[in-house]
Amino acid sequence: MATPLFYDSLTVRTQSHDYPIVITEDATSKDGSMAKQIAPYISGRQVLIVTNDTVAPLYLTALEEGLATDFTVKVCVLPDGEQYKNQSSIDKIYDALMAAHFNRDVTLIALGGGVVGDMTGFAAASFMRGVNFIQIPTTLLSQVDSSVGGKTGINHAQGKNMIGAFWQPKMVLADMSTLKTLPARELSAGIAEIIKYALIMDETFLTWLEINLPAMMTLDLAVLGEAVKRCCQYKAKVVAQDERESGVRALLNFGHTFGHVIETHQGYGNWLHGEAVAAGMMQAAELSQKMGWLTHDEVDRIKNVLMLANLPTTPPAIDIKTALDLMGHDKKVKHGQIRLILLKSIGSAILTNDFDDQLLSDVWSQHSV
Amino acid sequence: MATPLFYDSLTVRTQSHDYPIVITEDATSKDGSMAKQIAPYISGRQVLIVTNDTVAPLYLTALEEGLATDFTVKVCVLPDGEQYKNQSSIDKIYDALMAAHFNRDVTLIALGGGVVGDMTGFAAASFMRGVNFIQIPTTLLSQVDSSVGGKTGINHAQGKNMIGAFWQPKMVLADMSTLKTLPARELSAGIAEIIKYALIMDETFLTWLEINLPAMMTLDLAVLGEAVKRCCQYKAKVVAQDERESGVRALLNFGHTFGHVIETHQGYGNWLHGEAVAAGMMQAAELSQKMGWLTHDEVDRIKNVLMLANLPTTPPAIDIKTALDLMGHDKKVKHGQIRLILLKSIGSAILTNDFDDQLLSDVWSQHSV
Repeated sequence: MATPLFYDSLTVRTQSHDYPIVITEDATSKDGSMAKQIAPYISGRQVLIVTNDTVAPLYLTALEEGLATDFTVKVCVLPDGEQYKNQSSIDKIYDALMAAHFNRDVTLIALGGGVVGDMTGFAAASFMRGVNFIQIPTTLLSQVDSSVGGKTGINHAQGKNMIGAFWQPKMVLADMSTLKTLPARELSAGIAEIIKYALIMDETFLTWLEINLPAMMTLDLAVLGEAVKRCCQYKAKVVAQDERESGVRALLNFGHTFGHVIETHQGYGNWLHGEAVAAGMMQAAELSQKMGWLTHDEVDRIKNVLMLANLPTTPPAIDIKTALDLMGHDKKVKHGQIRLILLKSIGSAILTNDFDDQLLSDVWSQHSV
Repeated sequence: MATPLFYDSLTVRTQSHDYPIVITEDATSKDGSMAKQIAPYISGRQVLIVTNDTVAPLYLTALEEGLATDFTVKVCVLPDGEQYKNQSSIDKIYDALMAAHFNRDVTLIALGGGVVGDMTGFAAASFMRGVNFIQIPTTLLSQVDSSVGGKTGINHAQGKNMIGAFWQPKMVLADMSTLKTLPARELSAGIAEIIKYALIMDETFLTWLEINLPAMMTLDLAVLGEAVKRCCQYKAKVVAQDERESGVRALLNFGHTFGHVIETHQGYGNWLHGEAVAAGMMQAAELSQKMGWLTHDEVDRIKNVLMLANLPTTPPAIDIKTALDLMGHDKKVKHGQIRLILLKSIGSAILTNDFDDQLLSDVWSQHSV
């Protein structure tokens, strides 16, 4: 068995239970240790691996064969893409569980990116009112974003992530080697979420990123592993304070209210989530500048970091009325009023409805048709 | 406003929060106090009432008009029947929520029996990862069974209640007057669950029922209210010990493993749930007798109580292989072994796989084709 070049882990504490995130390398290779590492977290003898048709050819066989000795292993391969993050895919998971005669002892394993993780988690939350699940995130975005927080769910035709549950995994295995097979656009999309943590929580991490982004973009796995670990720690700290997102956790949605408008308007899957968040963070930064909280230089610094990661810094052209109407569907609307996460300074975010509506319109109109 | 003839309440304690069950009379009448009683438990301004096409003509207008002054009220009327307890109905609830532009401040109100309550609860558990809900159970079964425990969910084509969540209401309003419009078969089906509590938990309650069943069958609302209160107390006690059904809570499924076979075999809706549970409790009692735990006289006593409530005491003819195969789909199968709830004596139940398979077959074969 290959010895990983690095191996690190952290423990996430939640209301229901604590679980580890193991950050490692080469576990998913043929002679890797994937099955061995996750086996202790499988409680019964029944395993359903949920993956998609892009990830399956890369890592499924190693996982399936590694587990087959000790467990009854079934597989559910879904089509790849945000457009399949819907009830129909959840039904396919339920059908696979029922066809296998699996019961509440089953453990679901999500092998894939955020879409696979969110759907597998929701299926695990709702099958027989809740069964175990384990995440093996294979994209940078899911390694930093979906590994912590227990958010699971699917999209509704009228809005993203409208259906779901809070449901925590028993263990997360983040293998940095999977990033070698990740398309460049998706690597950048993951880095957008990493930059987000710097902007809302820690200015010194932004400085770290300004130095280390070139290494991350050229797949230095140790540096990527360090970034993933730091983000999981930031997120775990926030989630521990506010598991059900009634307060501080909402700040993690920085850039997302603008980003959701972009994703909904463009159709799921055309803009990657991280790309939409990148453009959305720029809009939020621009509004923060209009409010007098950020300087022009600080907004430029944010723009430059996003550009280092090959990320978009402007939204597509959307007319103002459509944009504002789509914002009204966002979950952060409270009593009919749009609330946004803005920056008081780099490293410090607030959730507020105390902004000038005209300034919000201006942020959209400078990019609109 | 009419003064209720009686008014009683109890508090249910759960891991997430405590909530009241208010047991009353005439609240649902036109000049009743339904809206006034539930309004304090609605947290935002948005209300979606979920009901079915049988209950809507009876009580919807009074509830809707009572709430319309203070809240934005929308309604989702589903077709009545266990056969509609499925994903398609949940999708209708989601669609109604999205069409109304409701967000996580919404409160869902379930106005109807157990099917409406289970589905509304699951929609509340999964819309935006969880919103408030209130139950107004209008059948005896749902008043005693669904008011406590937080079980919500829907059926899968291959099995009952396979999809769902544990999700607690903010308040339950059980109006005994709704039982006046309940079909006689459904009143009996509700009494089956009441008898269940006596059999598994309290022999003195069985004696109480032997005395009071005639009054319950002729709709003495005060006696029915007393029975509902006692059952909610029994159930609350069990659920407080074991909210997620890892131990003692499983005993509440007495008669249900046999009953599920009957319901699945006959097609949902042909046997009422309570009727299937009644026949299932007799089968469990017969197996308990074969195990040497109950006497012939005790089994007869159970049969006589069920007959006082006009309940079936034998299952329909189902061949043994089909019956045992259907039992394998039940959630109480652990590591592939069928576990059953049996009676050690009247008032004392156990969950066990320590029974002779031949005796289980005998219990089915004495009624099979």
